Amino acid sequence: MLRTHTCGELSLKDVNQEVVLCGWVQRVRDKGGMIWLDLRDRYGLTQLLFEEGKTPAEVLDIARSLGREFVISAKGAVIERLSKNDKIATGDIEIRVTKLQILNAAKLPPFLIEDETDGGDDIRMKYRYLDLRRNAVRKNLQLRHQVARHTRAYLDNLDFIEVETPVLIKSTPEGARDFVVPSRMNPGEFYALPQSPQTFKQLLMVGGFDRYYQIVKCFRDEDLRADRQPEFTQIDCEMSFVTQEDILNTFEGLIRSLFKEVKGITLDEVPRMTYADAMRLYGSDKPDTRFAMQFVELKGQEQDLTSGKGFGVFDNAGMVVGIAAPGCAEYTRKQVDELTEWMKRPQIGSKGLVYVRYNTDGSVKSSVDKFYSEEDLKKWIVAFDAKPGDLILLVADNADKARKQLNELRLEMGSRLGLRNPDDYKVLWVLDFPLLEFGEAENRWFAMHHPFTSPKPEDIDLLDTNLGQVRANAYDMVINGVEVGGGSVRIFAKELQQKMFEILGFSAEEAQEQFGFLMNAFEFGAPPHAGIAFGFDRLCSIFGGADSIRDFIAFPKNNSGRDVMIDSPSHISDGQLKELSIRVDQA
Amino acid sequence: MLRTHTCGELSLKDVNQEVVLCGWVQRVRDKGGMIWLDLRDRYGLTQLLFEEGKTPAEVLDIARSLGREFVISAKGAVIERLSKNDKIATGDIEIRVTKLQILNAAKLPPFLIEDETDGGDDIRMKYRYLDLRRNAVRKNLQLRHQVARHTRAYLDNLDFIEVETPVLIKSTPEGARDFVVPSRMNPGEFYALPQSPQTFKQLLMVGGFDRYYQIVKCFRDEDLRADRQPEFTQIDCEMSFVTQEDILNTFEGLIRSLFKEVKGITLDEVPRMTYADAMRLYGSDKPDTRFAMQFVELKGQEQDLTSGKGFGVFDNAGMVVGIAAPGCAEYTRKQVDELTEWMKRPQIGSKGLVYVRYNTDGSVKSSVDKFYSEEDLKKWIVAFDAKPGDLILLVADNADKARKQLNELRLEMGSRLGLRNPDDYKVLWVLDFPLLEFGEAENRWFAMHHPFTSPKPEDIDLLDTNLGQVRANAYDMVINGVEVGGGSVRIFAKELQQKMFEILGFSAEEAQEQFGFLMNAFEFGAPPHAGIAFGFDRLCSIFGGADSIRDFIAFPKNNSGRDVMIDSPSHISDGQLKELSIRVDQA
Repeated sequence: MLRTHTCGELSLKDVNQEVVLCGWVQRVRDKGGMIWLDLRDRYGLTQLLFEEGKTPAEVLDIARSLGREFVISAKGAVIERLSKNDKIATGDIEIRVTKLQILNAAKLPPFLIEDETDGGDDIRMKYRYLDLRRNAVRKNLQLRHQVARHTRAYLDNLDFIEVETPVLIKSTPEGARDFVVPSRMNPGEFYALPQSPQTFKQLLMVGGFDRYYQIVKCFRDEDLRADRQPEFTQIDCEMSFVTQEDILNTFEGLIRSLFKEVKGITLDEVPRMTYADAMRLYGSDKPDTRFAMQFVELKGQEQDLTSGKGFGVFDNAGMVVGIAAPGCAEYTRKQVDELTEWMKRPQIGSKGLVYVRYNTDGSVKSSVDKFYSEEDLKKWIVAFDAKPGDLILLVADNADKARKQLNELRLEMGSRLGLRNPDDYKVLWVLDFPLLEFGEAENRWFAMHHPFTSPKPEDIDLLDTNLGQVRANAYDMVINGVEVGGGSVRIFAKELQQKMFEILGFSAEEAQEQFGFLMNAFEFGAPPHAGIAFGFDRLCSIFGGADSIRDFIAFPKNNSGRDVMIDSPSHISDGQLKELSIRVDQA
Repeated sequence: MLRTHTCGELSLKDVNQEVVLCGWVQRVRDKGGMIWLDLRDRYGLTQLLFEEGKTPAEVLDIARSLGREFVISAKGAVIERLSKNDKIATGDIEIRVTKLQILNAAKLPPFLIEDETDGGDDIRMKYRYLDLRRNAVRKNLQLRHQVARHTRAYLDNLDFIEVETPVLIKSTPEGARDFVVPSRMNPGEFYALPQSPQTFKQLLMVGGFDRYYQIVKCFRDEDLRADRQPEFTQIDCEMSFVTQEDILNTFEGLIRSLFKEVKGITLDEVPRMTYADAMRLYGSDKPDTRFAMQFVELKGQEQDLTSGKGFGVFDNAGMVVGIAAPGCAEYTRKQVDELTEWMKRPQIGSKGLVYVRYNTDGSVKSSVDKFYSEEDLKKWIVAFDAKPGDLILLVADNADKARKQLNELRLEMGSRLGLRNPDDYKVLWVLDFPLLEFGEAENRWFAMHHPFTSPKPEDIDLLDTNLGQVRANAYDMVINGVEVGGGSVRIFAKELQQKMFEILGFSAEEAQEQFGFLMNAFEFGAPPHAGIAFGFDRLCSIFGGADSIRDFIAFPKNNSGRDVMIDSPSHISDGQLKELSIRVDQA
């Protein structure tokens, strides 16, 4: 090794020892007679000391020639510092350097390699290898390694076996868009990159593997929104001879173990909520349960406390639903107007926002006083179980739209009221998803999870009568309002699988061509099985208390799917295209 | 869980316990009044017992309806067996079944799910999910999991950090052919799949990560020979602030640890051999050192014991080189002729084979007696340090060809003499590879390892004078004649890297376009670094004592790069092609 120690490990117990350190020059303070230099590596910072008269002249000369980010090797004795720094692990000591070597010079980096950098997103992506030197980014990747390590430890311990499934597979029209790979040896044919190893893990169950996992790259050629990556990583899992309950317990165990090992947090028991309740109480299938502010329907399936008073907006709406924002009764008119405008933006599309102030003095004031008596409003307050000081905010629309809008408002109010602390973790299972959802544009049914998801046995008859009512044995894990994982009990009988493909609009031939191998496999003794997959990048970002997954990926792509560091994708040669039997056709 | 136990864990201590097992019907023996059924899962076999008069009639009916590979659930009490089977872990007990349920029926599988199967390669690949049920295949994948697990444990323990590098990268003309992926969002542009994460791991070193590893899928679009796969897995590693010696020690440690943990074998210290010696003594850069039979050059750089005696074949050859096959002096003329023919096949291309029998009675007999006196031949015997009973086999050609041919003969003789026991492991480091090799066809120099490999510092001046003589700080690990890993100390100075690209025929512009990001990175403080990558599939096959890597991959492709199970690659729709701005062009 070119070094005897790292820059993070020396302390008073090492005083007088001769050491060699290697690393990057973080900063140099030249006070004339004395020079201090902070040397940095992955493990920490160590201060180097150069002193006129004591340090050899040629070493001083080299020290004075160093710039930021030079890579150096320094030899010297560990000494106790006069003025100690208790902010860093090595703050009690410094190195009196006797030998100094420049291993590699460095041009001035285009942004500061500090916790607080002056580099914008674009420049940091272009020079990602410099960004990786920053503590923040390095710690994110170290966290990622820890999450992976403890995931494997937990699953290995339960007799799961990690099996690698292929990356070059087959394109299927169901689901998101595939990335494809032209085959040179099979001209005119293409592989596809997997959106998930779904069918392969099911085949592993048919193959008797019984408990499988894989931390695996997956690919989706979707239009990228902020924080979506064309390649992403999943913790992919499947089990045989289990019920939904076994999956929930096993993977609640995984998450509890990760919180314990990685964050030192002992989780409460993970509550469970049906999809129907989640939509009713939060207007979302991934509610943020760090705070309550549950929906109350003044007009809905259960009751109608709004109609017949002459307020057309409510009278004509399918649903009037609201939240009670605690302590917000004192919002000014301006604040309420601003909220109303926020709700009316096209991204949310509310037609308006009705408020009821429940003042601390017990009085009530509303924007619809004209239509509703104080007695009416008091009934609303009772329905909300509101407290003096609450501000009730109401939207009216058809049920789907009203819930969607109010979900946004609830999250916004949660943020404004500081109820969404990233260090507070609320984990939730959402259960009993609908099996199918109707695509208005395509005028057909789609699988809400995927076509291999089993309907609830008690709902199977509904497949012939009321597709929209069929519930699936499907489940999502939600942390702080983010879906981190999801899965389902799978179909394992050929007939039911065929029926599902039929419902999804596959002809028998199409189903056979695309998924024949799986349906054939079901005929040779497929066990009951179920599984789950976690979004690994997302899980890491939540453990890191961050919003963006990009910070937890070593070399992410931008929103155009481009790696600006290596400048990819790029053109390839005509020779390559010819070998692959394809032509570019930018019509 | 649908079961209380697996089929591999019950024993006498569980007698009288009521259990539920799930699994596949391995076989049924119906002796009229008694039926025995072997139930199989991933963990083992357990015998189920059904008895006329004791077992409920409806259970007997179901039992009689079962076929091979039916998936069943059986409930009953554990009882001691009358006739025990000490070949299986559960051989002392059986289950007296009281409840039996068919979870899924099975068609008769197209081949026997037994250790010795009647299924050929093709049918087993098509029904890989059934092949996976066989012990042999399952154990290979379990071994693979163990090798991965212990690799991670060893490296984690040394502060290595696993970092995922991208799969959608950029095509580069150097090296093997890339698989490419058309970018929909960047029409006319393509990603490439990585042949290895080489440049990314070097950038991680520039980013200060210092000790990196990854067990990672890599891709090469090469014409497939037996036992090459278009996608394969590497254990990819890189370290900063190290010398070659540190890499050799760290990864010798990895291999020793794997042998210990996975195989229970304590390895001897791993010997080291230069490339030059490997070629001289074995005619190969990956010698099988389980046996000696080293080459002796009768005519070569050191000596010439053959010329001037009127034997034109030897006189005109650049090299006469041979091996002494122990105990083979008694080979019949027919056997020697057969060996000669074997050597003259086009795959080897020898012009002939000269033999010298050193009989046990001390007499000498050769196919070139006519030209060489007994005294001449005795000198050869001394040169070989041959023992009575040895058969010396000689080839003559230019040095490269002669060595290549003799390498094949040596391995063949090793096999024939039973000297290549798969349970005997000899690990070897081969060092000091040439930096460059000349491509006659292309009339230019190629990097023997890759363009990022550092020349030996003492050979750097030769870059200007004698490219063929420059040795690299590159190393391979060889086990039993198979290269399992290789790596090098890397170039970390921009100027040297530029010079390498120049030598390899890149124009300055091409080098900048393809690898500019790396050379730029070298300007911002790149540390000295070095690394290695192991072929994970190959390593697993060696640990499994097998020749083929295919048996250690869950879903391998055939020699045309085709997955015959899912029938991939396949055609994609015109709509997909259009979205990707490409057209198939099978001109």
